[in-house]
Amino acid sequence: MKKPLTIVFPLYPGVTQLDFTGPWQVLSRLPDAQLIAASIGGKTIGSEGLHFSSLQSLENLVDCDVLCVPGGGGCTDAMQDADFMQQIKRLASKATYITSVCTGSLILAAAGLLKGKRAGCHWMYLDTLAWFGAVPVSERVVRDGNIISGGGVTAGIDFALTLVAELVDEALAQRIQLGLEYAPAPPFNAGHPDVAPPEIVNQLMSNMAAQREERRQVIADISQISF
Amino acid sequence: MKKPLTIVFPLYPGVTQLDFTGPWQVLSRLPDAQLIAASIGGKTIGSEGLHFSSLQSLENLVDCDVLCVPGGGGCTDAMQDADFMQQIKRLASKATYITSVCTGSLILAAAGLLKGKRAGCHWMYLDTLAWFGAVPVSERVVRDGNIISGGGVTAGIDFALTLVAELVDEALAQRIQLGLEYAPAPPFNAGHPDVAPPEIVNQLMSNMAAQREERRQVIADISQISF
Repeated sequence: MKKPLTIVFPLYPGVTQLDFTGPWQVLSRLPDAQLIAASIGGKTIGSEGLHFSSLQSLENLVDCDVLCVPGGGGCTDAMQDADFMQQIKRLASKATYITSVCTGSLILAAAGLLKGKRAGCHWMYLDTLAWFGAVPVSERVVRDGNIISGGGVTAGIDFALTLVAELVDEALAQRIQLGLEYAPAPPFNAGHPDVAPPEIVNQLMSNMAAQREERRQVIADISQISF
Repeated sequence: MKKPLTIVFPLYPGVTQLDFTGPWQVLSRLPDAQLIAASIGGKTIGSEGLHFSSLQSLENLVDCDVLCVPGGGGCTDAMQDADFMQQIKRLASKATYITSVCTGSLILAAAGLLKGKRAGCHWMYLDTLAWFGAVPVSERVVRDGNIISGGGVTAGIDFALTLVAELVDEALAQRIQLGLEYAPAPPFNAGHPDVAPPEIVNQLMSNMAAQREERRQVIADISQISF
């Protein structure tokens, strides 16, 4: 790969900011790397009240070494945005590593990049990867050749440390982990349906029911077209 | 506390973005809460290549329920910025909870808010809290009355889940944790000097030596003035 290494994060309206700010924090400590946050037309992207400006235009990027697609509620619209998807396909075709965090893997799948590939996703949508012909894997970080995908939201930090070890070495990944004091100690044990109290899972599923059903219907429709 | 609950994040040049984007992601899922990112004059804040715009002016905020000060390399300058520190003192004087992530606690300490109080900080600067008369505690989340402080960078996620349980209840904190799939699985065990391989600790300390000594000198000077 050329130096500096270029890592592109394609942002879109409704992206979940921690999906990319987590990995960005880790990867920004790579030496000889250029991190690029980009959107269609370079438009400022809002996410849950934060506004990310001075973005580059996805259309103007010639290529990248690493493409990292974040997820979020807006991924459903992003998958249906022809201009955005065209840029994903174009950049992915030249990238050395094609990566995602959370439901960003659904965008990769909708771009036809995950057929027959093992991939991770947010637990709530993991099964839908199969609708695109991908092989859903319930792990924090999933690798299949040059495709590396993380689980939901916070998995992006684990994903990024794994990527640093791949791009440079484990010692650098460990120094970055130490610098970010990443010795997590969640005050509760509720981060995955396998371990969360059943009533917590039921409450969240109930709260998300309408949004979840709508998104699954859209994914079903998109996957039929692209598959 | 009034509804909506207001949570203010005072940003400054050189802030570490994950120090506030992590907690922001958690707290943005509170019902009836307004999250406010603010800076002196509402100026856009850059952090490791990301640009946060549409910020509110710290000077224009009347008060807040929760003040949450993030850390970062720029905290040394922020502590020496009279305008910024005046706003921290003003907002803290009216806040129900005074909180911080990472070296944000040094800013609280420099504002005279931690005298005799137990507080956390990034491990590399934890001891310097004592220079301001605070009681350094090497824990992920530290509480002393209405002061809640997190450890380095990624501790902000653990901190924010703890805060949600305090502000609302544990069930909501757990639902948010589940939604963010916060079941961390770091690929390495190097997130704190107590567990990292000694050579990793030595390498990082060596890389940071110049910056660390400079910052410690500034902190020593400031703490003599403010103490």
